[in-house]
Amino acid sequence: MSSPFTLHCRSSYGAARRGEVKTSHGVFQTPVFMPVGTQATVKGVTPENLLELGAQIILANTYHLFIRPGHELIRQLGGLHKFMNWQGPILTDSGGFQIFSLKDLAKISEEGAAFKSHLDGSSLFLTPEDAIKVQEALGSDIMMSLDTCIPYPATREETVAATALTGRWARRCRTAQQQDTGQLLFGIVQGGMFADLRQQAVDELLDIGFDGYALGGLSVGEPQELMREMTEAGAAMLPADYPRYLMGVGTPEDLVESVFRGIDMFDCVMPTRNARNGMLFTSRGKLVIKNAKFRQDPKPLDENCDCYTCRNYSRSYLRHLYMAREILAMQLNTIHNLHYFVNLMADIRQAIEADRFEKFRKTFYAMRTD
Amino acid sequence: MSSPFTLHCRSSYGAARRGEVKTSHGVFQTPVFMPVGTQATVKGVTPENLLELGAQIILANTYHLFIRPGHELIRQLGGLHKFMNWQGPILTDSGGFQIFSLKDLAKISEEGAAFKSHLDGSSLFLTPEDAIKVQEALGSDIMMSLDTCIPYPATREETVAATALTGRWARRCRTAQQQDTGQLLFGIVQGGMFADLRQQAVDELLDIGFDGYALGGLSVGEPQELMREMTEAGAAMLPADYPRYLMGVGTPEDLVESVFRGIDMFDCVMPTRNARNGMLFTSRGKLVIKNAKFRQDPKPLDENCDCYTCRNYSRSYLRHLYMAREILAMQLNTIHNLHYFVNLMADIRQAIEADRFEKFRKTFYAMRTD
Repeated sequence: MSSPFTLHCRSSYGAARRGEVKTSHGVFQTPVFMPVGTQATVKGVTPENLLELGAQIILANTYHLFIRPGHELIRQLGGLHKFMNWQGPILTDSGGFQIFSLKDLAKISEEGAAFKSHLDGSSLFLTPEDAIKVQEALGSDIMMSLDTCIPYPATREETVAATALTGRWARRCRTAQQQDTGQLLFGIVQGGMFADLRQQAVDELLDIGFDGYALGGLSVGEPQELMREMTEAGAAMLPADYPRYLMGVGTPEDLVESVFRGIDMFDCVMPTRNARNGMLFTSRGKLVIKNAKFRQDPKPLDENCDCYTCRNYSRSYLRHLYMAREILAMQLNTIHNLHYFVNLMADIRQAIEADRFEKFRKTFYAMRTD
Repeated sequence: MSSPFTLHCRSSYGAARRGEVKTSHGVFQTPVFMPVGTQATVKGVTPENLLELGAQIILANTYHLFIRPGHELIRQLGGLHKFMNWQGPILTDSGGFQIFSLKDLAKISEEGAAFKSHLDGSSLFLTPEDAIKVQEALGSDIMMSLDTCIPYPATREETVAATALTGRWARRCRTAQQQDTGQLLFGIVQGGMFADLRQQAVDELLDIGFDGYALGGLSVGEPQELMREMTEAGAAMLPADYPRYLMGVGTPEDLVESVFRGIDMFDCVMPTRNARNGMLFTSRGKLVIKNAKFRQDPKPLDENCDCYTCRNYSRSYLRHLYMAREILAMQLNTIHNLHYFVNLMADIRQAIEADRFEKFRKTFYAMRTD
């Protein structure tokens, strides 16, 4: 099986690497941050905004689209790309994490996951085969296999069982996949906080063979140091010639540290969600726009930023919009935060290419005042 | 005093006319619809969206900006145009209508209007001189004189008193205006539903002399026929060589009918507010996007529309966004509705120029199915 990943170069500092992934809707450069478009829209921005701020690939949530408006409707409307007017690559998660998040509303068995819709409480069932069928109907470029998530903390016994089930589900996903859709399928490594169980999970996934590999079950409440350790160990277990995706991570610091440990792909709701709550990311750290000190501040959010928001609007205006609960506050804040995350990755890619990632990492921390 | 208005041509049908108004931030073509940007933003759209959909001039609310963030703050930030990143003409209302809308929170005296902030209940006072001072600080291109609004129904006695006070306030506004700001000042004709009182109000305003004249106190609950009658009578009383503005009106039908009666300028929150509530304007009439029949409808909102929304999104997607309460629903719906209103006026201008306004009006009604 050929890999969609091409390695461009490695950093001489840490395990950072620079590459690209080829999909049916074009190539994206790694390391990459994927904005989250849960319900077939990245909240608060248009596809044109995403292109302008430099987004290469976005993520959509299988669980949410399965519940509403339904994958068959999206298929009939021509697939997710056409439905939402985004012609670049799309990665869909499997729905596993969202079902896991439903807690008492979900029940996992060998066959699949029984759960109740968060919208109307109706009883639903999703098997690994269903997860693939739904993602095929959506027509995403990268599908994720259905996994079972493991809470933190979890006993070794719980972790062994859930990890083994994830392995069996991964095999069923790979088997269920149609061969002619041009869609890639990634496997998800579970194993909790046990390195040896993660290694077993990796071995199982490699035996099946996927187009890329994701680390799941991290950033679920464990201490930061443990997350870093498991990321480093997990990345090192994965084959160098396939893309590596750390799911649901994270802060700007997490991105820098995880690239350093060999990760290629990231997604997180933090830039979009925090934008709506008035928390902005800047090269000097976080900025809370409702703070009274910004009331008459004519400066842009970040003087080192060339996003649409920073080119055209003052902190004073952005504070006014936020205090007045205007929709434009969410639009402008989201554009800025996504630009920050996407542009951080572009800077990281340049640094790796020029083999100055060590200096980049030092400067990144030196500039931060929060 | 020279008029900012240039008359291009008159329709041979009704009192419709085609012209332009010159301001410090450029010329706009009339008849014109002005999107409402209450709090220094047209809700849900960027200035670039406004330019793309064809908006020439926008309206901002003096009352709201006076309360928050404050006119002095906006002056310090370089004025309203710079603050909100809109370089085209801006008209600011005087605050009179908003204060009138506060009802029990407002008390009118000869000196001015005492009222309580709708935000924090603090006691405020606005004189005609203050209304000008605030609008000068905002730096709008067209200022409105402070008026007292008259509820419907109102007795002749109430109307006489309020209209006379509006006249005295108009004179104080004109006197208070600085001479070197390049800002235009419009007078507001009150007079309720009494044509002779409206004529007296017009005579008073003409004696003072303004850069344009507005009909106020219409669309305040009176029957549609009465509104049309007062619009026709009021427009006919106004000098032909000055712009005529019908405040706070209205539906697409109102725009067509009022142009027919000689009005040049309009503003209304209807396209933006209804957009946020999922009510869309189309060439065939109104469309309620949450209606189940649009669930799988691949067509654009309006097949006769070339706005960004109609070029790129299906009714099915727009329904999904609305049902999921996504921000993008409000953005896309607002773009469409504003485009409809703005483009309706562009079509009207073309029809008047080609002297086929009669045919335009007939076709406008013939196409509507609601």
